[in-house]
Amino acid sequence: MKYSSDELKSMKPKEFRSLVRKGAWTDVSLEVCQGFSQANMVILPREYAFEFLLFCNRNPQPCPVLDVTEPGEVHPKSIAPDADIRTDLPGYRVYEKGEIIDEPTDIVKYWKDDLVGFMLGCSRSFVWAMRTANLSWREYGPYPTSIPCKSAGRFHGHMVVTPRAFFDAKSAVRAVQISSRHIYMHGAPVFIGAPGEIGIENLGQYDAFFPRRPVKEPPKPGETLLYWGCGITPQIAAMESKIPFMITHKPAHMFVSDLMSEELAIL
Amino acid sequence: MKYSSDELKSMKPKEFRSLVRKGAWTDVSLEVCQGFSQANMVILPREYAFEFLLFCNRNPQPCPVLDVTEPGEVHPKSIAPDADIRTDLPGYRVYEKGEIIDEPTDIVKYWKDDLVGFMLGCSRSFVWAMRTANLSWREYGPYPTSIPCKSAGRFHGHMVVTPRAFFDAKSAVRAVQISSRHIYMHGAPVFIGAPGEIGIENLGQYDAFFPRRPVKEPPKPGETLLYWGCGITPQIAAMESKIPFMITHKPAHMFVSDLMSEELAIL
Repeated sequence: MKYSSDELKSMKPKEFRSLVRKGAWTDVSLEVCQGFSQANMVILPREYAFEFLLFCNRNPQPCPVLDVTEPGEVHPKSIAPDADIRTDLPGYRVYEKGEIIDEPTDIVKYWKDDLVGFMLGCSRSFVWAMRTANLSWREYGPYPTSIPCKSAGRFHGHMVVTPRAFFDAKSAVRAVQISSRHIYMHGAPVFIGAPGEIGIENLGQYDAFFPRRPVKEPPKPGETLLYWGCGITPQIAAMESKIPFMITHKPAHMFVSDLMSEELAIL
Repeated sequence: MKYSSDELKSMKPKEFRSLVRKGAWTDVSLEVCQGFSQANMVILPREYAFEFLLFCNRNPQPCPVLDVTEPGEVHPKSIAPDADIRTDLPGYRVYEKGEIIDEPTDIVKYWKDDLVGFMLGCSRSFVWAMRTANLSWREYGPYPTSIPCKSAGRFHGHMVVTPRAFFDAKSAVRAVQISSRHIYMHGAPVFIGAPGEIGIENLGQYDAFFPRRPVKEPPKPGETLLYWGCGITPQIAAMESKIPFMITHKPAHMFVSDLMSEELAIL
């Protein structure tokens, strides 16, 4: 990699997507293009499009809809009209009947004219806002939970969340306020309290989606744990619902849009 | 009518819907069940459901989605599980190829197993919030405008808005703040300025959807005009797009849900 961390942070989305398209960046997108909205992605055949859009509408905190392409359309017109969803994400996952069959860096060979792309807001986006407000916290996960999503047609499953530990109550309240403005980036927390209450055991001691990540300190007394819906939720829904065919981003390998997070904030 | 204005305002939604179901109320719902969310309604065949839900997602200010029923399901489970969308609205409109063919008080004879009901938030709901904040204003319309909606599949059309004239700048700013919290009731205004800029002529001198309403005073110098998206927008889209079959509420004859407006507000 020939780019410094600062260069990646200040890079414009178009330039970053161009690197990705050329195959020059296949790593996580977490710290690139600071201030711009990143998006989780789900691609499904037209036959499943209504039920999945309804699933998103019924579960707007894990699945906030930023943009939806028409069947066969590869450009997400509202959030990045010159991007191509087949090539511009640094990593993809291809699912068949709920199992991962491939993790390619582009999906050109899987593309069909009946596929519909759903771009879902991502918490990386409001993380910028919380940093701007000088908040600090310990970030965990994401983790699967025992919280059921509202089902829609053939889509059902349990919610994935991102827990964050805030070191004092004042910061936790501020985090609720700030994230609530960002309704297209998961909005307000879905839960406050002990991880065991929503089925998360041994918080910080393992990482459900990124096994190579180092173990993190457990929460300490006096800290407040907030949990936000996570855009990996549709992948769990695909697995639990055994959807015949579905393509998603690879976790943490998001699409970077042309819209700034603040453009999409409420109030 | 045997109910006083105060009785109607303080009536619970279930009681009001029961009156409507029995045919004992076929008038407008504007001032009933104060504090509860009312909903505009659109019913379409399953074949059109994805494109219409996408139309709503792309135009969330005129078309905020409160609830969607599964095909053939008559109970809007999220907002009023014991209600029946075939009988519980005081007035309906049936459209064929973009033309009104009937204005019944129930749609039992039109019901089919492939119909999907879309319940869309209504500005009556945030009007309660603005009154609670002691704001006053002059209400106009709704009016069709020259503002194009974002199209989705076979749905396209121009936005319908509700203009409101605020008597001083401070009240107008407060109205933007208050309505912005109510994202399921059209949220923030879509326009601020002179009516001619969005294609509305002779504001107050005629009423596009309620011809019997009295003429209203025109706006005066120093007043600020704010315009909110209106849930009649899908009816214009049905007409402009010549959708083969669609049922809606009759304008101002809304569905009254069990949810309070404040339950749905952001922040």
